[in-house]
Amino acid sequence: MKFLGISGSLRAQSLNARLLRSTARIAPTHVQVELYEELGTLPLFNPDLEPMDPAPVARLRTRIIAADALIIASPEYAHGVSGVLKNALDWMVGNESFVGRPVALFNASPRAQHAQAALRETLRTLSARIVPEACISVPLLGSGLEEDAIVHDRGICATVLAALRALEVAVASGGAEEGTAFHTI
Amino acid sequence: MKFLGISGSLRAQSLNARLLRSTARIAPTHVQVELYEELGTLPLFNPDLEPMDPAPVARLRTRIIAADALIIASPEYAHGVSGVLKNALDWMVGNESFVGRPVALFNASPRAQHAQAALRETLRTLSARIVPEACISVPLLGSGLEEDAIVHDRGICATVLAALRALEVAVASGGAEEGTAFHTI
Repeated sequence: MKFLGISGSLRAQSLNARLLRSTARIAPTHVQVELYEELGTLPLFNPDLEPMDPAPVARLRTRIIAADALIIASPEYAHGVSGVLKNALDWMVGNESFVGRPVALFNASPRAQHAQAALRETLRTLSARIVPEACISVPLLGSGLEEDAIVHDRGICATVLAALRALEVAVASGGAEEGTAFHTI
Repeated sequence: MKFLGISGSLRAQSLNARLLRSTARIAPTHVQVELYEELGTLPLFNPDLEPMDPAPVARLRTRIIAADALIIASPEYAHGVSGVLKNALDWMVGNESFVGRPVALFNASPRAQHAQAALRETLRTLSARIVPEACISVPLLGSGLEEDAIVHDRGICATVLAALRALEVAVASGGAEEGTAFHTI
């Protein structure tokens, strides 16, 4: 099973990126968590450019479609979704890559309530399937925890593993939904 | 008096940009409405780049500070603020260019309620002064009105002029607020 992690921050020391990198290490062997590291290569969204399908946009779309589920971890800037993440989502509106796709929201700062709410609204509009049991807050802000410490923190590992399991279940049940005719009760 | 208009869309045929260009022509002679046309030149926001103060960021900050008030007209993408506009606002968080500055929100699509609400929340966080009487909806979406038709439409002209007057009043009263000790009642 393959999950794609997207951090909504371009900062090198981003706590959200750190949480996703840690998640890739915490994940059980049958779950591969890949990181999307090209958020900063996307052009600013312009509907006039959509017919040209810029290469970074095509690559993001391909990676989303190739993933069984997404894990999005975004900071909050000025009580809103980061512009860079929203820019990426704006490019995905027209291509339906999010339709029906299970999404987990990971939050490294429990204060980021406005951004999380706005992100949910936008993801619902993209027809993504937000998986409530896979949405977690891991309060890294102010913790000083580096990646090695995170992957050895039992509490964090348990939270992350439970979220990943919930996402797996959602992927499996999504498949059943698509093919209910073949689903044995 | 000088107002700076910012459209939240990079589309050449953007209705919000059209509304701002029309506003510049409708404005009385003592009110100059300039358009900010460089939204697409801003880099994607990265806190690590803030100390370098990229040239397009510095130019936007300078123009905001030089303006007596701002007029922001943004489309709604996927039930949120456009990523390109949020990206510009993210760059302005750290430099306080919005603090105390009167802002009018112009809306070319009355359906864009989620984006308007999110934009207000972010602008309040930036300590901008949103002027309620200067926030207007001009339903250009589906009207087919080009710029010439807009500036000759009596209803639209009346709405836009009233908003500009409200913004002028806010600028004047803002000055009084800053210097209450010198204000004669």
